[in-house]
Amino acid sequence: MPELANGWIKRISVTPPSLKDNTADADRLEKALEAVLNAEIADIDLTISGILPELLRRNNFNLRCILFKDHKKWRLAGITGDDDTIVAGLAVDLGTTTVVLRMLDLSTGRTMAEYSFGNPQISIGPDILTRIHFAEKENGLKTIQGLIIDGINRAIGELCKSGGINPSGIYLLSVAGNTAMTHLFLGLNPRFLIREPYIPATNRPGCLNARELGINVNQSAKVFVFPNTGSYFGGDLIAGILYSGLNRSEKTAILVDVGTNAEVVLGNKNWLVACAGAAGPALEGGVTKMGMMAGPGAIDRVSVNPETGLFSIHTIENLPPRGICGSGVIDLAAALFVSGMIDIRGKFVPEACKGRLREKDGLKHFVLVPADASEQGNDLSISQADIDSLIRSKAAMYTILETISSYVGISLSELSTFYVAGTFGSLINPRSAITIGMMPDLPEGTYRSIGNSSLEGASMILKDCRLMDEIDAIRNSITYIELNVNQDFMNRFSAARFIPHTNLLLFPSVDSVALV
Amino acid sequence: MPELANGWIKRISVTPPSLKDNTADADRLEKALEAVLNAEIADIDLTISGILPELLRRNNFNLRCILFKDHKKWRLAGITGDDDTIVAGLAVDLGTTTVVLRMLDLSTGRTMAEYSFGNPQISIGPDILTRIHFAEKENGLKTIQGLIIDGINRAIGELCKSGGINPSGIYLLSVAGNTAMTHLFLGLNPRFLIREPYIPATNRPGCLNARELGINVNQSAKVFVFPNTGSYFGGDLIAGILYSGLNRSEKTAILVDVGTNAEVVLGNKNWLVACAGAAGPALEGGVTKMGMMAGPGAIDRVSVNPETGLFSIHTIENLPPRGICGSGVIDLAAALFVSGMIDIRGKFVPEACKGRLREKDGLKHFVLVPADASEQGNDLSISQADIDSLIRSKAAMYTILETISSYVGISLSELSTFYVAGTFGSLINPRSAITIGMMPDLPEGTYRSIGNSSLEGASMILKDCRLMDEIDAIRNSITYIELNVNQDFMNRFSAARFIPHTNLLLFPSVDSVALV
Repeated sequence: MPELANGWIKRISVTPPSLKDNTADADRLEKALEAVLNAEIADIDLTISGILPELLRRNNFNLRCILFKDHKKWRLAGITGDDDTIVAGLAVDLGTTTVVLRMLDLSTGRTMAEYSFGNPQISIGPDILTRIHFAEKENGLKTIQGLIIDGINRAIGELCKSGGINPSGIYLLSVAGNTAMTHLFLGLNPRFLIREPYIPATNRPGCLNARELGINVNQSAKVFVFPNTGSYFGGDLIAGILYSGLNRSEKTAILVDVGTNAEVVLGNKNWLVACAGAAGPALEGGVTKMGMMAGPGAIDRVSVNPETGLFSIHTIENLPPRGICGSGVIDLAAALFVSGMIDIRGKFVPEACKGRLREKDGLKHFVLVPADASEQGNDLSISQADIDSLIRSKAAMYTILETISSYVGISLSELSTFYVAGTFGSLINPRSAITIGMMPDLPEGTYRSIGNSSLEGASMILKDCRLMDEIDAIRNSITYIELNVNQDFMNRFSAARFIPHTNLLLFPSVDSVALV
Repeated sequence: MPELANGWIKRISVTPPSLKDNTADADRLEKALEAVLNAEIADIDLTISGILPELLRRNNFNLRCILFKDHKKWRLAGITGDDDTIVAGLAVDLGTTTVVLRMLDLSTGRTMAEYSFGNPQISIGPDILTRIHFAEKENGLKTIQGLIIDGINRAIGELCKSGGINPSGIYLLSVAGNTAMTHLFLGLNPRFLIREPYIPATNRPGCLNARELGINVNQSAKVFVFPNTGSYFGGDLIAGILYSGLNRSEKTAILVDVGTNAEVVLGNKNWLVACAGAAGPALEGGVTKMGMMAGPGAIDRVSVNPETGLFSIHTIENLPPRGICGSGVIDLAAALFVSGMIDIRGKFVPEACKGRLREKDGLKHFVLVPADASEQGNDLSISQADIDSLIRSKAAMYTILETISSYVGISLSELSTFYVAGTFGSLINPRSAITIGMMPDLPEGTYRSIGNSSLEGASMILKDCRLMDEIDAIRNSITYIELNVNQDFMNRFSAARFIPHTNLLLFPSVDSVALV
């Protein structure tokens, strides 16, 4: 692979000193770097000044400098000989549930290895609130920070094994996470994130020293932590915007990260508007009895032949079905609707469901997979309460989308692209999401699943130093709207609690499907 | 005491956040500080961002901020409640032989306590060269750095005891030392300081984190390390220039730090010229058999009644004499000369010395204190070789002074003030130094002993934030001259190897003394 033109590694030749020019090594290097960058550089770390004199003389005054940058300044993250040893960087998606690390060769941008693990803070609690309360206890913050740092260090160990390098070969980390996860990662007091007026300890952590955070990489390595715009809009989303390119497009587009919280950004190269709101856990498969996170054996796709009423399912890794994940639930609801097995209020239609409907604990259940076909020997079914919950969630989602677009005075139908982020998002079948009225009725091709956009954004930053300025531009151009649950919001929400919607004109394509 | 007008503590009121203004605490504080300072501030340390949210709310959004600065930027060294608890700073004179710490109340500038101790690196070797060679061994640098850091931490413990504060109440340190001591303090490779072309690892260490250096003070405390201009001109001298005010004066003056090495700065507010050269250990009392460092029982003053030939001596703390220190040797040589007991070449004149001259080991010795009057029951005497050595040293000293003044084209007689720095310097009797031709024949009152100017300069910086810019101005305006031991230098040196000098016109006042 060719060397990245705008990567973070610069080959620098320093003029050798002489009796007539006795400038110190660090000052000499600083001067050389500033000439190349045409910008000021932040203090050179003592750990770098310490190894500099020998390294300069062993390499005939030619070095590779590993740089980094934040909203303030260029930083020197390390120096190494003028050779071709691997200089690596790590992109980190600091998820509440899952943490993903990608190791990149900083010279070429090539992905060397990837590793993901469950956020060890789950042992404190699966949700953010529990963790923040824990952090308020004595030593709680230190403990909870230790969990994630230790987890990352273990992951680095694994990555280095598969990449065949030493942790000291890692010089840059870029970390994207929501505001709370970022605070816990940095050991910052998260107490006021959850108390009105919801103030983070910091918006722009910038570049930090990895060793100060206890991360086991090169001793002068720098960690760039994506900025947030407040408690509810974190660095993971800013990384996502960067990856989607929302901020570089002439045309207005939308980016939606669907989860327990739905985070939405709408905009173009001139402006960005964002909001976040609770969409309900139903969307992540967290509520139904057979619900599960996307994983091996999860039913992730469901379809129905409306004429025969026969269902087809697909499981992740084609294993015997163990449960259903969020995208499966959405597919299932859409299938039930188009085959007439639920009505526009989402209520089961017994005559259409026929033998698949069972009564359990006083609630109607629709059996998708009978016990003998399931992995664990029990019916995989969805209850009326599950469907009701899904409808509330999808209505909340749609209401959030309507609210933000009406805030800027455009119609959802005008969107050029609808980016869906997140693992869950990548599994959703837009056709099904449109059918149940969770997402607007846009032409096929408008929807674009972008996967783990937080990880992708964090990776991009490691490959192109020019993007660092873009991050700040994104952060500064976001207008964050507080979603006030007022009468207007409630009216929209009520109208969205039908499949696909009270106003069928909003969903012309669904209308025709339902009529089939 | 009133609060210092230009001290480092600023009382800052931060606008409380609201739902309409959800800027993070750290970003809010940064903005408030930048408005007050009218300048950018470097990254706020994580340890500060960590305690900020609670501290802000407990103090109704009013804080005391402890700032610091270097050649690059303002730094935030700590935050504390808006009350009157003591916020302390430490000025450190990092001497090769003796380390002196002074604890100051940063609000008022009052000295709270002082503490000095022998540099523990003496256990490696008394001289710089031995220590640098030791630092080149495996783990040597770490060991030798550990010695000084541990010593400073012990001293901090003592100072805190006498000052009645906790180490966490110390937020600022300013450290002035020569280039080698500074490198060893910072754990920087000193290898190339002693090899042509004599390049330091760094010229301007700037502000560092105390905790990174292992110094036991407040966890966000900053350490400012005085810059150097090369291997031979360190931060101690820059601190000395600052204290002398050489750089602020219209009139040209000179600053001399006399020791084994003589460091000399000549200049005024428009320019500064510096040089350093070996003056020989004789000046510090390091050569004569009875020589000793200034300390209890050391003969520090000697005078003679030229008519009776009777000597008077004074010892430090008026104890029975144990030896003679540098200033005593200079006095003695002057006394021997004015009473005719040595000639202009420094050779004993037996008929004038009378019974005081003894022959030992084939060398003539002049007995200053007979065995029965000395503390240890042995003659305190000075040999012909000692006098010869002193003359070489004084000739070197004078030659350095002549060389630097001729470099800038002025005569030594034009100097408005002759500052003498250092403990040794403070003991020298200028009259004696002039008599033997070690220092130029300037009117009484031109000589000003300024004591430990390195410690004083380091203290000044803690009391007046405006001086920080002056340090950089000093560093940048110094032209360092390499003393080339060429024919010109040797000619001057030869001419200076007489008492007071071959050219008696240079020493009109001595001429008259000698004639008495």
